[in-house]
Amino acid sequence: MIKANNPSLTSWVEVPEGSDFPIQNLPFGVFKTPGLRPRLCTAIGNFVADLQVLSEHGFFDDLKIDKAVFAQPFLNDFIACGKEKTSAVRNRLSEVLDSDLDDWDASELAAYFLHPMDEVEMLMPIKVGDYTDFYSSREHATNVGTMFRGKENALMPNWLHLPVGYHGRASSIVVSGTPIHRPNGQQIPQDAKAPVFGPSKLMDFELEMAFVVGKETQIGSSVNITEAEDHIFGMMLFNDWSARDIQKWEYVPLGPFLGKSFASTVSPWIVTIDALEPFRVSGPVQDPTPLPYLQIDGDRSFDIQLQVDLQAEGQPATPICRSNFKYLYWNIAQQLTHHTVNGCNIKIGDMMASGTISGPTPDSYGSMLELTWRGSKPIQLPDGSERKFINDGDTIIVKGWCEKDGVRIGFGEATGKVGSEQ
Amino acid sequence: MIKANNPSLTSWVEVPEGSDFPIQNLPFGVFKTPGLRPRLCTAIGNFVADLQVLSEHGFFDDLKIDKAVFAQPFLNDFIACGKEKTSAVRNRLSEVLDSDLDDWDASELAAYFLHPMDEVEMLMPIKVGDYTDFYSSREHATNVGTMFRGKENALMPNWLHLPVGYHGRASSIVVSGTPIHRPNGQQIPQDAKAPVFGPSKLMDFELEMAFVVGKETQIGSSVNITEAEDHIFGMMLFNDWSARDIQKWEYVPLGPFLGKSFASTVSPWIVTIDALEPFRVSGPVQDPTPLPYLQIDGDRSFDIQLQVDLQAEGQPATPICRSNFKYLYWNIAQQLTHHTVNGCNIKIGDMMASGTISGPTPDSYGSMLELTWRGSKPIQLPDGSERKFINDGDTIIVKGWCEKDGVRIGFGEATGKVGSEQ
Repeated sequence: MIKANNPSLTSWVEVPEGSDFPIQNLPFGVFKTPGLRPRLCTAIGNFVADLQVLSEHGFFDDLKIDKAVFAQPFLNDFIACGKEKTSAVRNRLSEVLDSDLDDWDASELAAYFLHPMDEVEMLMPIKVGDYTDFYSSREHATNVGTMFRGKENALMPNWLHLPVGYHGRASSIVVSGTPIHRPNGQQIPQDAKAPVFGPSKLMDFELEMAFVVGKETQIGSSVNITEAEDHIFGMMLFNDWSARDIQKWEYVPLGPFLGKSFASTVSPWIVTIDALEPFRVSGPVQDPTPLPYLQIDGDRSFDIQLQVDLQAEGQPATPICRSNFKYLYWNIAQQLTHHTVNGCNIKIGDMMASGTISGPTPDSYGSMLELTWRGSKPIQLPDGSERKFINDGDTIIVKGWCEKDGVRIGFGEATGKVGSEQ
Repeated sequence: MIKANNPSLTSWVEVPEGSDFPIQNLPFGVFKTPGLRPRLCTAIGNFVADLQVLSEHGFFDDLKIDKAVFAQPFLNDFIACGKEKTSAVRNRLSEVLDSDLDDWDASELAAYFLHPMDEVEMLMPIKVGDYTDFYSSREHATNVGTMFRGKENALMPNWLHLPVGYHGRASSIVVSGTPIHRPNGQQIPQDAKAPVFGPSKLMDFELEMAFVVGKETQIGSSVNITEAEDHIFGMMLFNDWSARDIQKWEYVPLGPFLGKSFASTVSPWIVTIDALEPFRVSGPVQDPTPLPYLQIDGDRSFDIQLQVDLQAEGQPATPICRSNFKYLYWNIAQQLTHHTVNGCNIKIGDMMASGTISGPTPDSYGSMLELTWRGSKPIQLPDGSERKFINDGDTIIVKGWCEKDGVRIGFGEATGKVGSEQ
């Protein structure tokens, strides 16, 4: 067992029950406060812990990491130190925060390195290089295929043979809390011959998770499936905002473009693969057996519970979807290996999202498109209103967490409020 | 007229007849030599001119540009200075190299700042943020559509209403001269039910040009068509290498992915929009009239002659395609405006390629797929061999130039040799 994952550990920092951030999590992020420049942090209970201050006080000295990496506005340089070092930092943080005080007791410094979470601003933690979006939920692909092509032709012939994916827009990936504008674009009214222009009328979310590349490759080389996870630093929540009317008109034959590129929202915390180890599960049975380069050994998925809430202006949040990462047909090792099998190089900070994570039951569908079945079954909200798609003023809150042996490893939230005017 | 574009200017540096780089061009690039770290340069005749040395000698002092930008391994920081300053640098270079010696005579420093082009290594000039590939040649879209869907359904309903585009892979864009590996991937043999895995058998080039974003926008804002060119720094040659068999199997419904992402080749020089001004032409008539946000004023295309040579191992290069940038239906202003109309933000260094530039005649088709009509009309080479697609050992050389009033503004080359082993 990874030392920091020990379920019996407790912290001298108070961790409220149900917190996403017990001492067994220790995700990485970037924050700032009015008085401080952006720097790296971890989360513990309701606090962020400033890694730059800990580094300045020598807590990482024996790990031989350039202190400058903790004072960056992005995690990229830290991740570039390699998993051996970043895992060592996480283990050291576990010692620093452990209530069984040891050589690394930092409790006397608490006032210097702990900040109440609600007093800091969490920033976009990664400078994203390339962003790729997969389409790895069989349920989602089947739902969408059924709606647009009928049940018989729902899954395309390639779908069960490879993790279908496409390149997305990196520049417009924003951190949780960033307001989301409703995009303008071309749409084709039903039975019309020519498109019209205006704000999207079919604004949607997509419940996804993303992983961050932690080890680069050179162009022309491929990552063997047995080594794929070595190239993955950690995971985040991801909302791939979608304008269905814009998407529908533009996407044949080259795929989604402006219907997606106006914004995507990520959670501010990257939960490491280390922290997720106790929650490994096998994914769905893959039939037909994938080609050899995609064949996996062992448990390559994770039991991560997912929830989406919709909060109308001035109303309480209402859960509208409960799903699980483990439903995904193609796992992250297969996604990354497939991505590089043609010799495409990957870089630290590249982000790869899962595609919408829909489960087997209608309440587990990961988009409004599926939940309301193209608007034919509107969602009823407690205030008496209903939704076919997302209204201006609505906030979409994506949450995710693992739970086992009394330990809850959470991802925080990926939240965005939709409006025409920002 | 922009001062540096004056056709009557000559340089004290010898410019051989037919050179791509007379004093009226002055493109920007990045080079290194064994003794020097990467730095910015321009081209004049058969020489590169070191901008860092000129900057150190005070030639740009009055332009108030941080000298550090000339000592970078990429042009991004230089471009970020804004068009006013980068245009002023180009005008100053024109004075520095002008045979009518004036206040800015640098001829005595020639030994310090001029390097024979064949003694330097040209580097990838841009750190590419996001890369987008358009599909803006009507002839290309019609050819491909005819092959795959028949003449009646060749153009998709959206094609004449918007510049179709998709996100591509930025990490694998390489500079001219970089060897190109033949990608592995899944392909579906004719009439087979399951795919096989192996090296692509249908390796292709795509003759394209790309522009580089020179002025950023914020998320949620759009670029008006009248201001679109203010956001474009300059243009390059682009070869969007394509593995047709991998592409065909994977691309429905989300677009090309691994069939493209293994490599793209750009020329090392960015020719500024300033230098292209004398070569403006109108593009094809657009019918139906585009929606108002895409309506242009004036000449928004450029008369750029394009040529592709194929050079088999040990053989002379053979021209296999002659086309022209002006054939493109959608122009760069329309492409950029469309890209941002949904509020997608653009960043300095983003690259947007045109899509394959095919002309009206069969010898102007910009890919092997079209030139050989899916392999049904092989190209005959002088050595007696023929090509349906690209063989290992073949080099593809993309060239481009404008010519008018005795002035030739060239783009250099985007060259790549294909091989299974690198």
